[in-house]
Amino acid sequence: MSTIKERASLIADQAAKMNKEVYKEVVETKATTFRKDFQKESKKLVSLEEAIKQSGLKDGMTISFHHHFRGGDKVVNMVVDKLAQMGFKNLSLAASSLQDVHEPLIEHIKNGVITSISTSGLRGKLADEISRGLMEKPVIFRSHGGRGSAIVNGEMHIDVAFIGASSSDALGNACGFSRSENAKSICGSLGYSIPDAQNADKVVILTDDLVAYPNTPASISESYVDYVVEVESVGDSSKIASGAIRDTKNPRDILLAKQAAKVIINGGYFKDGFSIQTGSGGASLAAVKYIRESMIEKGIKASYALGGITAHMVKMFEEGLIEKLIDVQSFDKVAAESIKANEMHKEASANEYASKDEAGSATHYLDMVILSALEVDANFNVNVLVGSDGIIRGAIGGHQDTAEDAALSIIVCPLLRGRIPCVVDEVTTLITPGSSVDVIVTEYGIAVNPRRPEIAERLKAAGLNIVDIHDLVAKAKSIIGNPAPLPFGDKVVGVVMNRDGSVLDVIKNINA
Amino acid sequence: MSTIKERASLIADQAAKMNKEVYKEVVETKATTFRKDFQKESKKLVSLEEAIKQSGLKDGMTISFHHHFRGGDKVVNMVVDKLAQMGFKNLSLAASSLQDVHEPLIEHIKNGVITSISTSGLRGKLADEISRGLMEKPVIFRSHGGRGSAIVNGEMHIDVAFIGASSSDALGNACGFSRSENAKSICGSLGYSIPDAQNADKVVILTDDLVAYPNTPASISESYVDYVVEVESVGDSSKIASGAIRDTKNPRDILLAKQAAKVIINGGYFKDGFSIQTGSGGASLAAVKYIRESMIEKGIKASYALGGITAHMVKMFEEGLIEKLIDVQSFDKVAAESIKANEMHKEASANEYASKDEAGSATHYLDMVILSALEVDANFNVNVLVGSDGIIRGAIGGHQDTAEDAALSIIVCPLLRGRIPCVVDEVTTLITPGSSVDVIVTEYGIAVNPRRPEIAERLKAAGLNIVDIHDLVAKAKSIIGNPAPLPFGDKVVGVVMNRDGSVLDVIKNINA
Repeated sequence: MSTIKERASLIADQAAKMNKEVYKEVVETKATTFRKDFQKESKKLVSLEEAIKQSGLKDGMTISFHHHFRGGDKVVNMVVDKLAQMGFKNLSLAASSLQDVHEPLIEHIKNGVITSISTSGLRGKLADEISRGLMEKPVIFRSHGGRGSAIVNGEMHIDVAFIGASSSDALGNACGFSRSENAKSICGSLGYSIPDAQNADKVVILTDDLVAYPNTPASISESYVDYVVEVESVGDSSKIASGAIRDTKNPRDILLAKQAAKVIINGGYFKDGFSIQTGSGGASLAAVKYIRESMIEKGIKASYALGGITAHMVKMFEEGLIEKLIDVQSFDKVAAESIKANEMHKEASANEYASKDEAGSATHYLDMVILSALEVDANFNVNVLVGSDGIIRGAIGGHQDTAEDAALSIIVCPLLRGRIPCVVDEVTTLITPGSSVDVIVTEYGIAVNPRRPEIAERLKAAGLNIVDIHDLVAKAKSIIGNPAPLPFGDKVVGVVMNRDGSVLDVIKNINA
Repeated sequence: MSTIKERASLIADQAAKMNKEVYKEVVETKATTFRKDFQKESKKLVSLEEAIKQSGLKDGMTISFHHHFRGGDKVVNMVVDKLAQMGFKNLSLAASSLQDVHEPLIEHIKNGVITSISTSGLRGKLADEISRGLMEKPVIFRSHGGRGSAIVNGEMHIDVAFIGASSSDALGNACGFSRSENAKSICGSLGYSIPDAQNADKVVILTDDLVAYPNTPASISESYVDYVVEVESVGDSSKIASGAIRDTKNPRDILLAKQAAKVIINGGYFKDGFSIQTGSGGASLAAVKYIRESMIEKGIKASYALGGITAHMVKMFEEGLIEKLIDVQSFDKVAAESIKANEMHKEASANEYASKDEAGSATHYLDMVILSALEVDANFNVNVLVGSDGIIRGAIGGHQDTAEDAALSIIVCPLLRGRIPCVVDEVTTLITPGSSVDVIVTEYGIAVNPRRPEIAERLKAAGLNIVDIHDLVAKAKSIIGNPAPLPFGDKVVGVVMNRDGSVLDVIKNINA
């Protein structure tokens, strides 16, 4: 018999050809006693400080975060506090978005811990200070799809991703909800964190519910995870539905919502199997109610609803009016509970949601979207980021992504907000190019982009009040007059990227 | 007001600093009419030939396949036939495993279409011919975990992955089962194909059930998929439970199964919350029955069962005796249906299952495994690949992975099969090193690796017949005598890799 020992030179030959080692114990078993452990410990399970140390994070590197807990997020502040304590400086913070709750970053910016930020949006005091010139480097604003693309194509390299999860096992199978009895938080979809998990050099899961292996189902696979850190709390779930999201009782919003619903219903895409996304603005959310009524009346069902998913959409899904929900972000606790309960409520990554670089992605198949705006202009350009006082107070979100891809994109925007004109000659900051925008709904009439004459025809035929966008601009001027120029300075405090990675606009500091 | 036009130079400055373009329509919307389509077509949906052309596949490249349909697989032959028709030569075929059904590859090897193969195993006439020297280059044999590692670390680069799926939408969200009314096939877990999908340069999904977007749930995300090809059939699901897997009625197998169950129960790891994998051999499967009885009797539950999942495991899962199933491969149709029906029946990728490169992975947490063998030797080395006639007739599978990682690895092997000794001085081919093997169960007694004296003590205390491995070798010799040497030639027809990427052994051609 040809024994392994006799074959030793052949084995060595093959190993050399393949540029490989020969297995160390090819020939005989060493007689050393050893022990294999029952229920092995996970080496990934460490303290936050230890995770940071082991990750190899250095000054000047990029750390990332998701914003699925929105106003209730506790991870950004916890981690940046720890990094400050540990003496880190000059870090880039790549968040999917930032909220009021992240005000403590102001101190960390002043102290040089954070010197660069990229995000979808900014709100609250942090936004105020940055608008006034707090940072030396401009904040880079990207859409959710644009961020996903930038991570995948390497434009935005993440050194260490810190991902808050409502459950994780000790190997890092992590989820935005928990099935354990000790569940402390829920945020639903972890969609924005998935590109981070898949592409960051090191991935740290922070969780407030460390569960038995295997955590099933999991949004993030252990395969991507380097460290798991157990913390007291990753977020306050009661604050998910904060920020942009609230139900409106404003009569003007309700009027706008009704008009938007009529555009949806009569725009040519309201057919059985249609797909829809509605933004987080009050009028946009309210429109869902009227669309629902028409769906029931006409016996029309939607194939899917997309986006930030709200209780409104969950209700229609549970009623069978919407076949599937595609959820990159659960906009309230009802949505978060639904993704836990129902397999047809699909979690989507930022790239499955809206990447321009993917031949598919949910926005690619999207028929209609209703979005809100801070300002629109005579070229149908939209601003959702910078207030008419020049202060940053919003987020790009999926605005650029859905407006460009949807067959029919509808912007809901009042002509005026108090003494502020919202339909203007030129938007303060360009966020979504007019070429992506089909219809603008105001309380003074509906403007249709001249690129879409067929839409204008359909809406006219349905008896809607179709007006020229320039007439809306003139109307606003006639009521308010020409607003005083904003006291912008010369410092660039923000750069707005388009979803394809090109530069759309800059935001200058405001002297107010 | 500072208009976008006035900011043009600032925008250009920022773009230049960031080495980016300025978005082409920053200032105004072009007045060209254009159309956005309702229910857009997927550009990914093409014919097989078109997918191959577009993929950029060239002579000399590597194509990959999974074996979840086992004996019922139709994808390998379909694709390689097409590649042969299209005139491709000198391709490397990287399969997760190959079965009897892949006999047509013999002709494609003879014609120079396929000149290199890597796989977990080979069976049938293809295995016969390769054992006799059909190929110029040796077949590379890897364990399932080893293959996953090799794909991730770049050792095995896949140019184009061809992945059969029981359902997919036109964007490539693909699954091993279907929820549509037109479902034609089911294979359950797509675990072995997940590393291919995530790492191949191009990914082609072949499906016999093209479903509406979004296919939910999906094992493979559209993010990884380049082409979707609709075909008549990807596999015959009735043949999943072929090859190694069958229920035994062999009295010796039942005796071995009872002994293996006693080792499990008395080995020190049979505690509430234990985890277990059982291989696909008859005795290994039969042991589950006795383990189940003891679990019920003692009130012990398992945290998870791992591996190729069988109907036996599904039954215990449904009874609540096993909390979760971790399924890299559904070994029969019952298992495939279970993964469709129950969220706690978790699909695992090859790397989540058994990668040595991941700090975690299911094998890492595995307490006990029962595996079969063609041969074991005096050093506890195991051969599961090459028959005692020198012909390849098996597969490494997860043998190396689970034996090394499990706290207690048990090999079930008869002393003799007919006139063939199975406990020998040295295995014909080394597949799993003896250092990974703790206990060998034969019908003539149970041998415990000297490295694990505590296990031997426990089994002795339970009254089991513990014998020296050398006595078993001697016993076999006393019955059969020394077998004649196998007529191996000088050509290396196979190289056996260890899961860590080192070379374990070579297989020489057999002159018989």
